[in-house]
Amino acid sequence: MNYYSDYITKLTEELGRLPGIGHKSAARLAYHIINMPKESVKELTDVITAAREKVRYCSRCFNLTDAEVCPICSSEKRNQAQIMVVENPRDLAAYEKTGKYEGVYHVLHGAISPVLGIGPADIKLKELIKRLEGDIEELIIATNSSLEGEATAMYISKLVKPTGIKVSRIASGVPVGGDLEYIDEVTLLRALEGRVTL
Amino acid sequence: MNYYSDYITKLTEELGRLPGIGHKSAARLAYHIINMPKESVKELTDVITAAREKVRYCSRCFNLTDAEVCPICSSEKRNQAQIMVVENPRDLAAYEKTGKYEGVYHVLHGAISPVLGIGPADIKLKELIKRLEGDIEELIIATNSSLEGEATAMYISKLVKPTGIKVSRIASGVPVGGDLEYIDEVTLLRALEGRVTL
Repeated sequence: MNYYSDYITKLTEELGRLPGIGHKSAARLAYHIINMPKESVKELTDVITAAREKVRYCSRCFNLTDAEVCPICSSEKRNQAQIMVVENPRDLAAYEKTGKYEGVYHVLHGAISPVLGIGPADIKLKELIKRLEGDIEELIIATNSSLEGEATAMYISKLVKPTGIKVSRIASGVPVGGDLEYIDEVTLLRALEGRVTL
Repeated sequence: MNYYSDYITKLTEELGRLPGIGHKSAARLAYHIINMPKESVKELTDVITAAREKVRYCSRCFNLTDAEVCPICSSEKRNQAQIMVVENPRDLAAYEKTGKYEGVYHVLHGAISPVLGIGPADIKLKELIKRLEGDIEELIIATNSSLEGEATAMYISKLVKPTGIKVSRIASGVPVGGDLEYIDEVTLLRALEGRVTL
């Protein structure tokens, strides 16, 4: 129902489509935006547009970046022979926050899920296998400890083991069913230290 | 800290400034926006811009509208002699949802709050007094039942009583400290029916 203006109705609908924003929150946000200074609204829309236009995947690890190769992959301080495999960029950020991991990453952008119809071809898996042709010593699998994350870990492990590259899995200090990005840094580090060879 | 791109950092910051969106939600939203189709992002920013550009206050009741006078004020079916005073447009929408109120509104855009330094001159109060020069029979004060809402109700009541116009207050069926916009329609109607003359 529209008590104000179709413009507000449309705005509320658009905002309500964003994840985690219900109808009440969308209405509150729309009302807030209507009352923002015009320059602030322009700043907000410009920043949204720029982010969508400029941000892309790193051609090596598929982390989000605005360069051809992300700062982690192009850093000389990082051990390029140690790759940590994560499901998404927020999981990468979670490990970067610990400040202790010195290898590089590979972002799968998903996990294998027969239930959701997501197969090995739907995530950045063949790109990972391609990277293993280089000088790689260890693959640390840091997918979530969910059903999908574990299945993906097993799948990668079986695939990579014949190559002789060491494959490890972060320790199950990570609570089962938990999302990596919400876990405290100490637990994340403990899981990294306690990783076991698969 | 920035693990991806300055564009994402800026986007997360901008989104985090919106009400009710914390840092984690902002990061999640930013990530979602990066992965949205470009057309959807354009639609979102266009709708935000249009809403901010086109929506303004009704010149009579200060409801949000894209016309000079809002549909409620310009409707012949509404009793123009009965004005319900609300704090903000969302409170107006809450009463409109009941479908039973047939008068018009006056939106104050705030409430008197000495603590926050909001005085009578900071809300649309002199505009309300101006409207009372017309053919008005009743003023229904439907400000929130918070400290500020009650203070505003008392202030308006004292101001208007000498004019002889009937001033009423919605009944205290509305829970104390509650926000009008979140209350169910039955309670809102009971509060309207049980209004008492001040």
